[in-house]
Order: sequence, then structure tokens, then C-alpha cells
Amino acid sequence: MPYLGIDLGGTYARAAVVDADGRVEAATKIALVDRAPGAVVEAIARATADAISAGGRVERCGVGVAGMLEGDTGVVANAPNLGWRDVPFGTLLAERLGRPVRVVNDLSAAAWGEFRVGAGRGASEVLVVFVGSGVGSAIITGGRLVRGASNSAGEFGHVKVVSEGGRRCGCGQHGCLEAYAGGHSLIAQMGEVLAQGIPSMLHELSGGDPARLTPVLLEQAAQQGDPAAKEIYDRATGHLALAIANLVTVLNPQFLILGGGVLSRCPGIIQRIRQGVAGHATVVSQHALTITEGALGDDSGIIGAALLSAE
Amino acid sequence: MPYLGIDLGGTYARAAVVDADGRVEAATKIALVDRAPGAVVEAIARATADAISAGGRVERCGVGVAGMLEGDTGVVANAPNLGWRDVPFGTLLAERLGRPVRVVNDLSAAAWGEFRVGAGRGASEVLVVFVGSGVGSAIITGGRLVRGASNSAGEFGHVKVVSEGGRRCGCGQHGCLEAYAGGHSLIAQMGEVLAQGIPSMLHELSGGDPARLTPVLLEQAAQQGDPAAKEIYDRATGHLALAIANLVTVLNPQFLILGGGVLSRCPGIIQRIRQGVAGHATVVSQHALTITEGALGDDSGIIGAALLSAE
Repeated sequence: MPYLGIDLGGTYARAAVVDADGRVEAATKIALVDRAPGAVVEAIARATADAISAGGRVERCGVGVAGMLEGDTGVVANAPNLGWRDVPFGTLLAERLGRPVRVVNDLSAAAWGEFRVGAGRGASEVLVVFVGSGVGSAIITGGRLVRGASNSAGEFGHVKVVSEGGRRCGCGQHGCLEAYAGGHSLIAQMGEVLAQGIPSMLHELSGGDPARLTPVLLEQAAQQGDPAAKEIYDRATGHLALAIANLVTVLNPQFLILGGGVLSRCPGIIQRIRQGVAGHATVVSQHALTITEGALGDDSGIIGAALLSAE
Repeated sequence: MPYLGIDLGGTYARAAVVDADGRVEAATKIALVDRAPGAVVEAIARATADAISAGGRVERCGVGVAGMLEGDTGVVANAPNLGWRDVPFGTLLAERLGRPVRVVNDLSAAAWGEFRVGAGRGASEVLVVFVGSGVGSAIITGGRLVRGASNSAGEFGHVKVVSEGGRRCGCGQHGCLEAYAGGHSLIAQMGEVLAQGIPSMLHELSGGDPARLTPVLLEQAAQQGDPAAKEIYDRATGHLALAIANLVTVLNPQFLILGGGVLSRCPGIIQRIRQGVAGHATVVSQHALTITEGALGDDSGIIGAALLSAE
């Protein structure tokens, strides 16, 4: 019996029918013109009506949402991209679809997809680290996703890498890993170079336009030896690699799976992470370790959400 | 049916009959005159003969060993305190006692005792941090002990707190947390103050005798404002508190249980850890968190080893 997996972003949702082996049978992209919860539910229901109605084929539905959830209640406590606070999304969607719905964190869903049918297939100890606009992780141990006592386990972007006087993070605290190594933060740091008129090839590469700054440009400039770019890049990758190495030491995973928009586009950062783990993680924690990129690409979240709906 | 729990140290072993609720029914201290594996097995067998033979009351036996183990095979790969390498201790003891024997890491045993019947009773998400001569941890999530892919999960003493040019650790690497905050290392750092003739009240407090240096003396001198002591103490507690706070952020435990010889004797360090977690861990990870000291004292290892034998 297949499942419906949904990856709910801020501007569109992707939905697909996924079978029990994680194969994607049909995928749809749904533009979210109106982000009000009722409108999102309606858009999803219409776009998936064929899959849902066809002889009751789809049994359950899983949704990955970028945001903070209230345990396993289906309530989205806070999803900044959607402008939602305390939305009982699971209940609303379940009522409309007439199917049980499980709402999970988007990174947890993507990690679960990679664990079950992707790069971590067959293992029981898996650490997944994502670097996109933010930094996150998911920990799987004994074949189970670690959720923690208040559903916040894996908040790897908010470990502190600078204990005093660190950069301010979007979360309100200072010195978080994400404030140095997240995509948004990398771009903000590059923007400071432009705004402060610091000599750098970032001016030429971006044509002086902050909107054209990307982590890829940063990697390019750093690899060409640009001092300002190198400072940002070395600091970010140094903090990221050390923090990942320390998680490897403590968790001793079989697979470290690297994903997210920044890592998939910046092979140099992946290289730095490999070097950092080799240099800083304990020798014994590296014996059983394979470091790899995700195998499912953008489908990991849909597949993981679908499969998590059956857990 | 009760279990036999054994805490195997370098100079003596402690053994006790423990019931399924973790109550210690009888305890024995066994001096290890000869540390050869056969002699240790014999000493344990004799000291526990009454408990083992009395109507076959004891069903299983668990042993906690300070050292590195080979998975769940009962082989002690390396136990420096005992001078053992690749000793099939589980098999040897099981043959002599005529009972199944499970060999576990001593910190895992102590953590399991606290989790099952001590300070973490009733919880499923528990992080235990021990600071004694070394620094270690045990992670329990979903009610299961995290062991990792090569049985080295929890090696918290060897996370790197200084990425370049850090102090050399007993493990051979540099910059490990244990090289700053472990009891042996604290004493070594105090010894450097004595040896280098750096002005400090540590000279008077110890009578100039390195053998009288202890973490308690360090805390005393630091709290009285001695600059040399304060430097060592602030650095050690700063690294320790930040590293613990980061684990709390990532694992989101319900209980953080603090134990070990240094923490049980140095309330100031516990205080620093509390402040560090409050200041550095994410707000959401602190919602469900209780920070507490272990409740079972020295019996935690015996109780945990006994109860783990039944898992």
C-alpha cells in the first residue's frame, strides 16, 4: 500500500505517491499562491486528488515542514517561511484528505529518506548534516530517529562555536554554528565585505550587487586566494568541520551523510569536512565511518515523509 | 531472579547481588593482588561463590570494565589500569561461574544504573557526563544506550575543544576536552605551575608536593582568586560547560546527570556547568531539562552492570 509524501516549502509544496520501498510513483509540484493554512490544505488536496481517490490506494500521508513542531501532535508551532504559528496542520489536512496525516520536521524527513532507502540504507547508526540556508542535523541510532525530550534534538545549527562575543544568530543567541556556516549567514558576511568596501574579488564577482552573492561565489573567491573571502570561508568551514567531527566522536555513526543546498553546490566545503573529521574525530570513531553525500537529492524529503507516516 | 553486578577497577573489584529493581542485596570488595586475567576471574569467583551457589539464585552476571571493549563479544580490547589487551574476559568468567556474563564499559554501566533506578528513573532521554580522572559520557535515547557503529559512542572526553595547538591528551591526539578538564589533566596542569615556579597559592596549599595536588585544591585556590589556579580552572570549566551545553542542544535530553570523582567533590564545577548550559544551550532544549547529580553514588556501576546483564 503506497503513501503520500509531501515536502512543504514556503513558496511551493511537492507531493508524491511513494511505495513502501521508497520508490516515487508520481510527483506533483504545487504552487502556494495563498499561504493561509486552509488554502494550503485545499491546494494540496486538489493536486493529490487523483492519487488519494483512486480506489483508496494511498493509506497514509506524511508531511515534512520547515519549522518547529509541537511533538507529534501535528501542530506547527512556528514556520517562518509560511508565516504560521500554532497551526493544527495535521488535523486540518487529515480531515480534508480522509487519511491519517503525520507532520514531521523537513530535515527529519529528508534524513529518514536517506536512512531508509538512500545513502544510509541498511545501517542503524546514521548522522545526517544539512547545510542550506541554515544548518541542521538528524541523528538516527538503533534504527530510530532521535527526537529528544522536547522534540528539538538535532538542532546542530545552534551549537555554540564561539563562547563569547560571537556573531548574532537568527535564533537570537550569539556564536551559533549557523551564524558562521549557514548559507544565509555566509551571504550576510559577504555582504559586509561589499558594504564596508573591504578590498576583495567579491566586488567583481558579484558586480557589486549583494543579491548576486552566493556560497558558490565565496568558495570560488576563497579558492583563488582572495583574503577577505578566505577569512569568511576558512572560519565557517573550520567551525563546521570541528563541530561535525565532535558529533562523530560522540555518536560514532556508520554513515555521515552530507546534504543541503550549500553542501551540494560547494564541493570544497565537503572536502574541508572530510579533512576535519579525519583530523579531529577519535581514531576509533572513524573505523566504521563512511562519509557520503545524500543519494536521493531533492526527493529525500518526500520519500522520508511518506515512509515516516507508516512508522 | 537477582543478578550479579561487578565493577572491575584496577586495584580492586566490587561485586554485589542486585535484584531486578536495582536493590543491592549484598556487596563484596575484592582486592586484586594479581591482575592476570585468570587470577582476577578466580578472585571474583571465590568472593561471589556464596551468592552464585546458593540454590542457583543468581541467573546472570554483568561486569563493568574501565577500558575499550570489542563490541558485545566480552573481549576487553584494552584496559590500561589492568594491563590487559585482547582478553576474552567474558568467556573466561562465564566458564568459571557457570552463568552468562555480559561485559560492558564502566561508564555505560554507571549511566545505566542511574537511568534505570537512579536520578534518571522513568525518563527515556538521558545524558550522563562523568568527570573523574578522565571525562566520559553515556547517551540514552528512546530508553536505549547509544553504542555507535564501533562501540565507541559517548567518548565525550575526546571531543576537540581547541582545534590547533591544543594540549596533548593521553589518547595521543591534541586539544581533547579531557586534556583540559579531566582530573589527571587538572593535576598535571597544577604540577606545571609548581614545576615552573609560577607564583600561586598552590605552592602553599600543596606544601610544594605535587602528590598532594587535587582538583579540590584547584577549586579552592581559584575561588580565592589565585590567578594561576583561576586560569586553569576557568579554562577547564569553560570548555567543559560549553561542550556539555552543545550536547544538550543536539540531544535534547530530559535529564543531564553529572557524576564522577571530580564532579562529586567540586560543587563549583557543577555550578559552572549549570551556568554554561543556561547560557549556551538552545532555549527549547532547556524546557524539558533537569540537571542533577547521580543518585546512586559508587553503587551505580554495580547496579547498572547487573541490570544490563538482563537486557
